[in-house]
Amino acid sequence: MAHINVPEGAPGIRGLMMSHPEQTRPMNELANALLHDEGTLTPGEREMLAAYVSNGNKCKYCATIHTAIAAHQMGGDYSVVHAVLQDPSTAPITEKLKALMNIGDKVREGGLNVTDEDIARARNEGATDAEIHDALLIGASFCMFNRYVDGLATWAPDDLSIYDSIGKTRAAEGYLTGYKQVFSTGSE
Amino acid sequence: MAHINVPEGAPGIRGLMMSHPEQTRPMNELANALLHDEGTLTPGEREMLAAYVSNGNKCKYCATIHTAIAAHQMGGDYSVVHAVLQDPSTAPITEKLKALMNIGDKVREGGLNVTDEDIARARNEGATDAEIHDALLIGASFCMFNRYVDGLATWAPDDLSIYDSIGKTRAAEGYLTGYKQVFSTGSE
Repeated sequence: MAHINVPEGAPGIRGLMMSHPEQTRPMNELANALLHDEGTLTPGEREMLAAYVSNGNKCKYCATIHTAIAAHQMGGDYSVVHAVLQDPSTAPITEKLKALMNIGDKVREGGLNVTDEDIARARNEGATDAEIHDALLIGASFCMFNRYVDGLATWAPDDLSIYDSIGKTRAAEGYLTGYKQVFSTGSE
Repeated sequence: MAHINVPEGAPGIRGLMMSHPEQTRPMNELANALLHDEGTLTPGEREMLAAYVSNGNKCKYCATIHTAIAAHQMGGDYSVVHAVLQDPSTAPITEKLKALMNIGDKVREGGLNVTDEDIARARNEGATDAEIHDALLIGASFCMFNRYVDGLATWAPDDLSIYDSIGKTRAAEGYLTGYKQVFSTGSE
């Protein structure tokens, strides 16, 4: 049971969105800007960063849902994101993305843990300032999202088909329609 | 020097706000909703939570600026927030706020670190669901803000009068006018 009262049957951050709209609206807009809007990193790459950081923080709901969204951003194929969760260094992703995954993991441990060498490695692999910024802020923001979801002990279903279904919708629509749907209908 | 290119002379998150408006607008709205808008915890209490969590994360810019904002939310008196930074348990604050500081500190360490006992303690001291929610999300969100500022190695001035001046403005105006000011003038 969650630490505070949330609507029954709404997993993860969704119940919190329904009961705390003032604070969660900007959180959805931030997620949309970072993960779904135009960018030189693909939505699939950015969702894999979100899943990887959430997995590092042991946040079951966020790691599983962003794994599903990443997969649906890549044609429904889970193999690449599963390989990233196991070990980015051996996953079939670009060297640039590996360097950005490293930055995401470093900032997850703490802002002061990101070194000049971490940044130089990303730059050497062709990452731009905007890509370094976005990867770092994805890592930092999931340190918020993960703590929000787990700190209030929200419900993380075991049934993977629930995540797959929500993930398919989010990949197609982004985070702003999801926000409106939650509020207009009280469910998906 | 910051890890990415930011406007010269803009400390902490301010340079990032100027160069990355799409992502920082929702972050300002979140800060305003959590710290400045109407709530049953006073703005001073909420700013002390932000300062305390930032101090725990060793984020010099955020800890110092939110200490100044907290002080200016309490008539310009720094003594209470300084006592909180030293040790909330002996600071001249309510038992309810002490219990919420404990939740902020626990979630700072990790979402899964917040226990039923931590929540029960806050409830026993009279904290409502909304207050528990807000304290926890302040803690979680400063795990993002702190990592964003330090992960990109932004400038944290040593001159306390800079923080005092910005803090006075923020306490009076909140975070939305600050956002507009940064963009319209490129400076305070």
